[in-house]
Amino acid sequence: MKVFHSPLHARHYPRHFLVSGAPQPNPEVPERAEALLTAALADGHETVEQRADFGLGPVAAVHTPEYISFLQHIFARWQRIDGASDEVVPNIHPNGRRGGYPASAVGQAGYHMADTACPISEGTWPAALAGAHVAAAAAREVLDGAPAAYALCRPPGHHAFADMAGGFCYLNNAAIAAQDLRAHHARVAILDVDLHHGNGTQGIFYSRDDVLTVSLHADPVRFYPFFWGHADERGDGPGLGYNLNLPLPRGNGDDEYILSLERALQRIRAFAPGALVVALGLDAHQDDPLAGLALSTDGFERIAVAIADLGLPSVLVQEGGYLTNALGTNLRAFLGGFMRSRP
Amino acid sequence: MKVFHSPLHARHYPRHFLVSGAPQPNPEVPERAEALLTAALADGHETVEQRADFGLGPVAAVHTPEYISFLQHIFARWQRIDGASDEVVPNIHPNGRRGGYPASAVGQAGYHMADTACPISEGTWPAALAGAHVAAAAAREVLDGAPAAYALCRPPGHHAFADMAGGFCYLNNAAIAAQDLRAHHARVAILDVDLHHGNGTQGIFYSRDDVLTVSLHADPVRFYPFFWGHADERGDGPGLGYNLNLPLPRGNGDDEYILSLERALQRIRAFAPGALVVALGLDAHQDDPLAGLALSTDGFERIAVAIADLGLPSVLVQEGGYLTNALGTNLRAFLGGFMRSRP
Repeated sequence: MKVFHSPLHARHYPRHFLVSGAPQPNPEVPERAEALLTAALADGHETVEQRADFGLGPVAAVHTPEYISFLQHIFARWQRIDGASDEVVPNIHPNGRRGGYPASAVGQAGYHMADTACPISEGTWPAALAGAHVAAAAAREVLDGAPAAYALCRPPGHHAFADMAGGFCYLNNAAIAAQDLRAHHARVAILDVDLHHGNGTQGIFYSRDDVLTVSLHADPVRFYPFFWGHADERGDGPGLGYNLNLPLPRGNGDDEYILSLERALQRIRAFAPGALVVALGLDAHQDDPLAGLALSTDGFERIAVAIADLGLPSVLVQEGGYLTNALGTNLRAFLGGFMRSRP
Repeated sequence: MKVFHSPLHARHYPRHFLVSGAPQPNPEVPERAEALLTAALADGHETVEQRADFGLGPVAAVHTPEYISFLQHIFARWQRIDGASDEVVPNIHPNGRRGGYPASAVGQAGYHMADTACPISEGTWPAALAGAHVAAAAAREVLDGAPAAYALCRPPGHHAFADMAGGFCYLNNAAIAAQDLRAHHARVAILDVDLHHGNGTQGIFYSRDDVLTVSLHADPVRFYPFFWGHADERGDGPGLGYNLNLPLPRGNGDDEYILSLERALQRIRAFAPGALVVALGLDAHQDDPLAGLALSTDGFERIAVAIADLGLPSVLVQEGGYLTNALGTNLRAFLGGFMRSRP
C-alpha cells in the first residue's frame, strides 16, 4: 500500500513535557517517524513524499479559524513576552468554552491548549500542516480508488479538538482525512486503536451523525486524557448514538482487546459507512513506555485482519506509538495483516 | 475595628508559579500577612487571634465535598507518585465540567486547579482552612452587632470556585463570610475591589439572586483571569442581573476608579442588602508588582469612605496585594477611611 509522508515533520521537536508537575523528556520525537518509515520501506511499500500544497482548506474543514490563527502566530507572539519560556506552554485554563476570548497570548494559550504535553515551537505549525496534508493526500488516494493508504503523520492528531491542542497533537489528521472522504461518501467511520482515547476526534464529530467515531483505549478513569473516553459519552444532539467508547482495563492483552474490537466492528457495520479511517496508534503494545495496555506484535496483526475484513476503503492515519525496538515491527505486522486481507 | 487573624497561614508557603510558561518566585508569601498585621497594630486596631474551630461547616456551605476532599488529601496522594513535583501543580484540564470525574491524582489536579498559580504543599490545607475560619469569625462579629470587622485572610480566596482553586486561592473566604451573613440577612452583597476579577466568587453565586456580586478589576481581555470578568457576564437563571463586572483599562488611577465605584455602589444600593462583604485586595496600587491599575494610597482611603457611606454592616476580607513598601500603608488608609465614616 502507498505510504504518504513528509520530511517537514522533523521541524517539530518538542522538549517540554510536564508529568505529574515535573519536567520529563518529550517522547514524541522525530525519530519515531524515521523508524516507521524505515519499517515501511523494509516491507517494500511504495513511499510517496507528500509535496502537493493543499492549502488551509482541509484543515479549516475541521478546525476553527480562531484556532488556526493561534497556531500560525502564537510562537512569534510568545517570543515578545519578557521572560517567557522557549516553547509555548499554557498556565491558565477556562472551565468552559462559553466565556470571553482573551486577546493576550497567555490567555489564548490556556484557551487553545488542554495540557502541557503540546508545546509549540518555531517549527510546530509547518510540521503540523505538513502532517495534515499527508493525511489529505492519503484520503485522496483512497477517493481515487485505492483500497487503502497509509498516512505517516507526525505530530499525531487525535487529541486535537476543533479549537484545542493536547497530548502531542495540534491538527487532527484523522478528522481531516474523514472529512475529505465525506466528499464522496455520505457516511464515514473513524476507528481509533491508539492506547489513548481519541478525545479530539470525538469532540469534532460529537454532534454529527455523518461521521461515526469509535475508540478503544485504556480506561481514562486513571489514564490520559482523564476527562474524556468514558462509555457514557455517546454523542450529542443529532450525534447521539454516533460515538462509541470502549475503555479497557489497564494491562489488557490481545484476547481481551479483540473481544472489544468485535463490538467496535459490529457498530461500524451497522453504520454502513462508505469509507473508514483508522487512527492507528501503536502505543497499546506491551513494551510501549506509556504502559497502558499489553498487546503483542501478533495482536496488531490480528487487529489489522479484523479491520480489513470490513472490506471498506480505508485510510490508515498514524497516531501515537513511542520509541521501542518493537515500534517498526508493529507497523509491519499491522500493514502486513491488513494487506493480506485486503491487498 | 477588630482584626481577625491566624498564625496558621504561615504553613502555606508556595514556591511554584509558572508565568508565560517559565518558573517565577511565587509572590503570595507569608510576609504579606505579617506586614498587614503590623500595619493594623500600628493603628491601634484590636487584633483577635482566631482560635475557635468552626469545623468544615462554613467551608462546605460554598464548596463541593469532592473539592474539599481533594484539598484535604491531594498532597499525600501526590507524594506517592514516582517522580512527581514537590508541590501539586496541574498539567491537564477538562474543557468543561460535564464529563466524568477521574480517579487519578493527576486527573483530579487538572479538574480542581484552574492554573499553575495555586500549588498545594503539605501546609496548604490547614492554612486555607484557618483563613476560612478567620473570615467566619469576622462574619460572626458582624452578625453579633459590630458595624464592621476585618478578616486578615491568607491565602486569599476570591479566585476559588465551588470546586476549583486558582490564582493563589483555595477556599473562598469572602463567599464563606457572605454565606454566613445570609443566616440573618435575606440579601448580602459582595463588592470586590481587588486588582483581579473575583471569578471564583462570581462563579459560586452566579445562579443565585440572594447574593449580589460586584467586581471592579483590570480588564481581563489582557489580564488574569482572562476567561472571566467581562461586562457581559451578568448571572444565569435566577441569578441573571445579580452579577456586575466593571472592567477598567490598564493603568487607570483614582479618579477613573471612583467613577466606576459609584456605579458599583448604585447597584448595591438598588439591591438593598442587609450586609456587605468587601473582597479587599490592595494590588490595584500603583506600586504593586502585578502592575494592573495605578491607585494611590489616597485612592484607597477615598474608596473606603465611599463604601462605608453605604451604612451596611460590613465584613472586610483580605484578598491580594503584594509586598511593597506601600502594602501596610494602603491597609491603614483603607481601614482609617472606613472607620472615620463608620466608627
